[in-house]
Amino acid sequence: MTKRKIVLAFSGGLDTSYLLVDFREKGWDVVTANIDTGGLHSGEAEVVSARAEELGAIEHHVVDARAELYSRVVTYAIKANYLRNGAYPSCVGAERLIQAEKVVQVALEVGADAVAHGSTGAGADHVRYDAVIRALAPHLEIVTPVRDERLVREEEAEFLRSRGYAVSEKVKKYSINEGLIGTSIGGEETYGSWEYLPEDAWTYTKSIDAAPAEGVELLLTFEKGEVVDASYAGGDPLVEKDSPNYAILSALNVLGGEHGVGRGIHMGSTMVGNLARVGFEAPGMLILIAAHRELEKLVLSNRQQATKATLGNTYGDLLHEAVYFDPIMDDFRAFLDSSQTRVTGQVRVRLHKGNIVLLGSKSPYSLLDAATRSGVVYGHGSSLWTGEQARAFAHMYAVPGAIARAAATPAD
Amino acid sequence: MTKRKIVLAFSGGLDTSYLLVDFREKGWDVVTANIDTGGLHSGEAEVVSARAEELGAIEHHVVDARAELYSRVVTYAIKANYLRNGAYPSCVGAERLIQAEKVVQVALEVGADAVAHGSTGAGADHVRYDAVIRALAPHLEIVTPVRDERLVREEEAEFLRSRGYAVSEKVKKYSINEGLIGTSIGGEETYGSWEYLPEDAWTYTKSIDAAPAEGVELLLTFEKGEVVDASYAGGDPLVEKDSPNYAILSALNVLGGEHGVGRGIHMGSTMVGNLARVGFEAPGMLILIAAHRELEKLVLSNRQQATKATLGNTYGDLLHEAVYFDPIMDDFRAFLDSSQTRVTGQVRVRLHKGNIVLLGSKSPYSLLDAATRSGVVYGHGSSLWTGEQARAFAHMYAVPGAIARAAATPAD
Amino acid sequence: MTKRKIVLAFSGGLDTSYLLVDFREKGWDVVTANIDTGGLHSGEAEVVSARAEELGAIEHHVVDARAELYSRVVTYAIKANYLRNGAYPSCVGAERLIQAEKVVQVALEVGADAVAHGSTGAGADHVRYDAVIRALAPHLEIVTPVRDERLVREEEAEFLRSRGYAVSEKVKKYSINEGLIGTSIGGEETYGSWEYLPEDAWTYTKSIDAAPAEGVELLLTFEKGEVVDASYAGGDPLVEKDSPNYAILSALNVLGGEHGVGRGIHMGSTMVGNLARVGFEAPGMLILIAAHRELEKLVLSNRQQATKATLGNTYGDLLHEAVYFDPIMDDFRAFLDSSQTRVTGQVRVRLHKGNIVLLGSKSPYSLLDAATRSGVVYGHGSSLWTGEQARAFAHMYAVPGAIARAAATPAD
Amino acid sequence: MTKRKIVLAFSGGLDTSYLLVDFREKGWDVVTANIDTGGLHSGEAEVVSARAEELGAIEHHVVDARAELYSRVVTYAIKANYLRNGAYPSCVGAERLIQAEKVVQVALEVGADAVAHGSTGAGADHVRYDAVIRALAPHLEIVTPVRDERLVREEEAEFLRSRGYAVSEKVKKYSINEGLIGTSIGGEETYGSWEYLPEDAWTYTKSIDAAPAEGVELLLTFEKGEVVDASYAGGDPLVEKDSPNYAILSALNVLGGEHGVGRGIHMGSTMVGNLARVGFEAPGMLILIAAHRELEKLVLSNRQQATKATLGNTYGDLLHEAVYFDPIMDDFRAFLDSSQTRVTGQVRVRLHKGNIVLLGSKSPYSLLDAATRSGVVYGHGSSLWTGEQARAFAHMYAVPGAIARAAATPAD
Repeated sequence: MTKRKIVLAFSGGLDTSYLLVDFREKGWDVVTANIDTGGLHSGEAEVVSARAEELGAIEHHVVDARAELYSRVVTYAIKANYLRNGAYPSCVGAERLIQAEKVVQVALEVGADAVAHGSTGAGADHVRYDAVIRALAPHLEIVTPVRDERLVREEEAEFLRSRGYAVSEKVKKYSINEGLIGTSIGGEETYGSWEYLPEDAWTYTKSIDAAPAEGVELLLTFEKGEVVDASYAGGDPLVEKDSPNYAILSALNVLGGEHGVGRGIHMGSTMVGNLARVGFEAPGMLILIAAHRELEKLVLSNRQQATKATLGNTYGDLLHEAVYFDPIMDDFRAFLDSSQTRVTGQVRVRLHKGNIVLLGSKSPYSLLDAATRSGVVYGHGSSLWTGEQARAFAHMYAVPGAIARAAATPAD
Repeated sequence: MTKRKIVLAFSGGLDTSYLLVDFREKGWDVVTANIDTGGLHSGEAEVVSARAEELGAIEHHVVDARAELYSRVVTYAIKANYLRNGAYPSCVGAERLIQAEKVVQVALEVGADAVAHGSTGAGADHVRYDAVIRALAPHLEIVTPVRDERLVREEEAEFLRSRGYAVSEKVKKYSINEGLIGTSIGGEETYGSWEYLPEDAWTYTKSIDAAPAEGVELLLTFEKGEVVDASYAGGDPLVEKDSPNYAILSALNVLGGEHGVGRGIHMGSTMVGNLARVGFEAPGMLILIAAHRELEKLVLSNRQQATKATLGNTYGDLLHEAVYFDPIMDDFRAFLDSSQTRVTGQVRVRLHKGNIVLLGSKSPYSLLDAATRSGVVYGHGSSLWTGEQARAFAHMYAVPGAIARAAATPAD
Repeated sequence: MTKRKIVLAFSGGLDTSYLLVDFREKGWDVVTANIDTGGLHSGEAEVVSARAEELGAIEHHVVDARAELYSRVVTYAIKANYLRNGAYPSCVGAERLIQAEKVVQVALEVGADAVAHGSTGAGADHVRYDAVIRALAPHLEIVTPVRDERLVREEEAEFLRSRGYAVSEKVKKYSINEGLIGTSIGGEETYGSWEYLPEDAWTYTKSIDAAPAEGVELLLTFEKGEVVDASYAGGDPLVEKDSPNYAILSALNVLGGEHGVGRGIHMGSTMVGNLARVGFEAPGMLILIAAHRELEKLVLSNRQQATKATLGNTYGDLLHEAVYFDPIMDDFRAFLDSSQTRVTGQVRVRLHKGNIVLLGSKSPYSLLDAATRSGVVYGHGSSLWTGEQARAFAHMYAVPGAIARAAATPAD
Repeated sequence: MTKRKIVLAFSGGLDTSYLLVDFREKGWDVVTANIDTGGLHSGEAEVVSARAEELGAIEHHVVDARAELYSRVVTYAIKANYLRNGAYPSCVGAERLIQAEKVVQVALEVGADAVAHGSTGAGADHVRYDAVIRALAPHLEIVTPVRDERLVREEEAEFLRSRGYAVSEKVKKYSINEGLIGTSIGGEETYGSWEYLPEDAWTYTKSIDAAPAEGVELLLTFEKGEVVDASYAGGDPLVEKDSPNYAILSALNVLGGEHGVGRGIHMGSTMVGNLARVGFEAPGMLILIAAHRELEKLVLSNRQQATKATLGNTYGDLLHEAVYFDPIMDDFRAFLDSSQTRVTGQVRVRLHKGNIVLLGSKSPYSLLDAATRSGVVYGHGSSLWTGEQARAFAHMYAVPGAIARAAATPAD
């Protein structure tokens, strides 16, 4: 009899190590899948792979999903200027979408009967995983004992040791999740609302104190809303030619972090309904969104900016809340893409002691230049209209308010 | 025959000095009104008053409108977290509303036949003035030669000198407008989009470089969305007891400016339709809005925050655009007031080298504490639901997406 | 030992009759509660009460919740002009809210340990019940075997007969739910999307054919958005003085139904995610909302109407989706109440062969009259502005479009 | 010396007849342009052309703009389900856009120096004309004495008679504007808000009384949101093959009018700020929008419908308000187009005594069918979830409300 096959989203951590062995003992052929969405440091992929082999995976798949995460998620987050609750680049949520998709893809490739992930039932990640799996491959069984049975980490460790597998004794003070978009940091201080994360909790960004006294000035070039070039003010490029699409974001994470940019604490509700608080480091997204938004001010109409703000927030919130397959998401992207037609130009940005200072911008589609070409000189009058026309405009503009005011006092 | 009486909004500057004399020569009795919305420095009121007398005003009124500007405009801007285009506390626009109202009030008190203001037709201020005057007192004539005839400053100066009045020779490099909410700064660099304002253009905020190496930590207390107390971390109050309602805002302007907080460049379209760019300094509003918004994250539902963001922006934009008398403004305020019922609590803020760092917050209405009381422990599971319930929730949550996906593939 | 006490929402139908006996046999003291939200016909309350006694309830409570349903739900549905998916007065959903609240109230009064309802897990009603119970009385156990165990109606009937209780043999062709707001009708034709309900499926409204050739003209009077009087064109009142608050709605249900008004088929998604289709009869709500909306056009600004439409839909959708306890609901009601300040006046309506014809309206706050008082005569020019002012306004109004168009063509 | 050339939007009515002669006498070469947006009856074009020649036009252009009006305006109005203030298909406003564009096109073709139109300054049409002209051809002078000088019809008639031109003595009781989208009717009753239009004011729709006792059933077929076929229930097509794109709309205008469908009175504010009331007949648009919306309920998600409702209303309002050149309009169209991907299928509609009865619909993208394929049977439980899963879902769904309720009561 053929054994049933299961694909396990595998990070090499305690939960998924336990699952691998547990599944094997329960008679599954276990295929492990390690999806890289930017959280793997040099050499880690090999460690994870070796661990999978050690624990008995029949196959181990490594999927580099960074380029796809960037093109499908990051670019739209920037087009939408999306910051959850106005502050948080929504690091973790969006990555789960891509991870779940890739796990399903591996499952379909290897002809698996089931997929497994190690998310607990306390947060929202398990909902994200299941939403993707059930929509893309409803025939796949979803196996999630960590969630369903509320497995305890100590028991998992004991289980593994009893089978002769080494388990790190180290108890991490902070729960860290790293990815291309950002790093999230949870710990004692973030379980309540009053305390700030201490200096040693942050992973790679410098404090304002430690950031260099001299800031750095950058020139960011956008085409139709996507950053296509980044250089220092002196002209040196930030990344090499032919770098992958996410290279500028990655470089800005490093450079921004160096200048104390990118730290924050997010507080927001999950789909499950409870409020959560978590620290994050995401210099690159914060810089790109700030610069992108500045360029939009130069080329988009007020109505575009206001409508984009509302739709973009809804789009980002739905993505964060795992509403990936509602067809409205395609409609939002169509709107966003259309809105970016003229978002082409350059933005000057200075990173300095935690600040992102927007110095200036230019674009062939500049509304400021178009007004000037049409005769407007701000602060100096305009050849587009006369003083009498301005007066008449003010006269007419006041009519609705005057009538509304008159209506408020009923006639006798 | 009685002479006709006109009330002139009077700042003592060139435009309104010219108007005073011109009106007088044309046979008006001129009453001057100097409305203080926070832009007057110590001793300036007296200078303006003396100038009015020198130039021949029959009466001079000084109206301190700061408390009313604060209670009617600033509190709602904070409740709405309103920043125009996501960045600008809309300094000038809202002040014009109050100024125009007060000028009308003076005009009604003195039984005037007309009112006058010195706004040009190049910007939006003249529209704001007229909108208020025509709604509140449609019988008053509006006399605005600076706008209607596009008066030239050199000619105004010449006119005054020819009548024996002194006119300052000094040509200001930057056009500055100061007020309680903020200071706006226009000049050569802001007429285009590429250049940043140089250090000497800013009026009172320090640069990041010049700000002290040590930041300062504050404790801000809100009640129903309004700041009611501010103290240093050590406990010392920021303002004296029984200070006017706007004292905390004013103190934060000074303290924030000292720490490099509050500078920005606004780029946005006017009601007239052209894009404008202007520098601003508004530390107090930026600090209060940031802190207020952080507290809202602790006590408001996601839906409240998202809906408030959209309505609040619309409210602020309409105010900026002089839509004061549309009854929707009352409805927005009713919504905002209702939303603030639980926005009571404290926020810890650090001002440091241009940064407003939100350290923590607490509230008796904290959703985080309520969840904890109900059994949720973020990151550690929850007694509010079991693992199986979490799994079932994920299962059900995925249904709409799975059906949408199934619907996308037509049945045979 | 005291027996544990359970309060059962009791309609006298098969499901809840089964539950009563089943609970009793399982050792509960069963208190039945029959909540009248307008679905009870004359004499039915007594039948239900007798059935409860027959089946062994230790107490039977009858709660007339019609006035409260009207004041807390119906008035806001009308203020919001809420029709789900633009068509359906959301009959059933809102009634469940009040029913669940009243059941909880009874449970608290009698000191019950648990509450029970007979909703299945196929629709959304069970979610509504639980949402209310868990928020208002989290300590109460919720007992719902019909949902949890997917009880089958044939087995329930067999169970009751085996205990000697009579069970009607009649199998209803349509599932009918009657209430103050409306009547819903589900059956074979509504399980798909293609068929219309046949004539015999409708319960009390006449067909267009059967409606009288002569229509009837009514005069509806509103105060601050609530209907306070209704009379025939000749002056005869529709309801007696001192009738309960819902009397006009009830009378319009009857009169509208007589004239073929009020039928429809609703198609919309539930919270659970699947699309549902159901017939409805709700003449009164359709008439009141149509008339109310017409009056709003006379007294509200465009912005009020547009914003109300969006917020009102969201409010109604959230209510329908059992989001009763999100504090945003209070904020929406504050907005709606504020918006109704001037919605006072009269509307002339003709009901005729299925049509609701809006003949005319008037109000002391009429914007049409205020404009006329201010000098505007539509179609005949206006003393509010001159031809040259109109021309200048058009000139200025065109500026943003002209600049946008110029910006679309990059400068060389 | 060459004479300057002006293109006059020419209807053959009194205003534009006067303008033609007046311009000629003032030394212009006058080119007349008669733009057909559906308002011309058989033979009228020839009458208008002859009048232009008689009055001395050097050229007369006839432009059939119906197909373009349909493809550029009508299809998006239907995709957006746009009814101004929820009732009015915005007949006149949208037609002016196309008319103005065509006049500009003629002006560019003949190398004109100026364009002229006969709109008064009392309404909004003059603003629409100028908005288009100034954006598309800012170099063209706009000549509009009817507006600027508030010409009086009696004087115009006298002027023409004095030059020997015949002028009709007939004074029309109602001001009628006919077009493809609909017919508007203004008159004594619509200047106030209380009276309804009398039977003889309507132009081609039948009253409910006069409509046939038997209704008619139609089958409308949509592809990606556009109606592509219409037939009687028996199978007979409503229009011939290879008819122009607007043929179904035109046929529905006739057929709907025959059955008493399509009458209404619109009350809404103009861009100028005053409220206006006007009767309309637009059976075709009302039928198509009702049917289209019904099909959308079958295939779009709740979120798509709700977002479309808001964006679609804004889109339609902006179009009505002559905001044609704001780039947001392209973004809205991109959103609408995307949303229509699955709006393909058929709708059964009965027209009967003024009613549009939506009988049923079907689509290969039906969400109802997809749910059924996935295991949901509405009203009968579902194989997509168990009773226990339903219970768990209700449990989890109640969590946010329960926490919000707990948060409302501060902890001690």
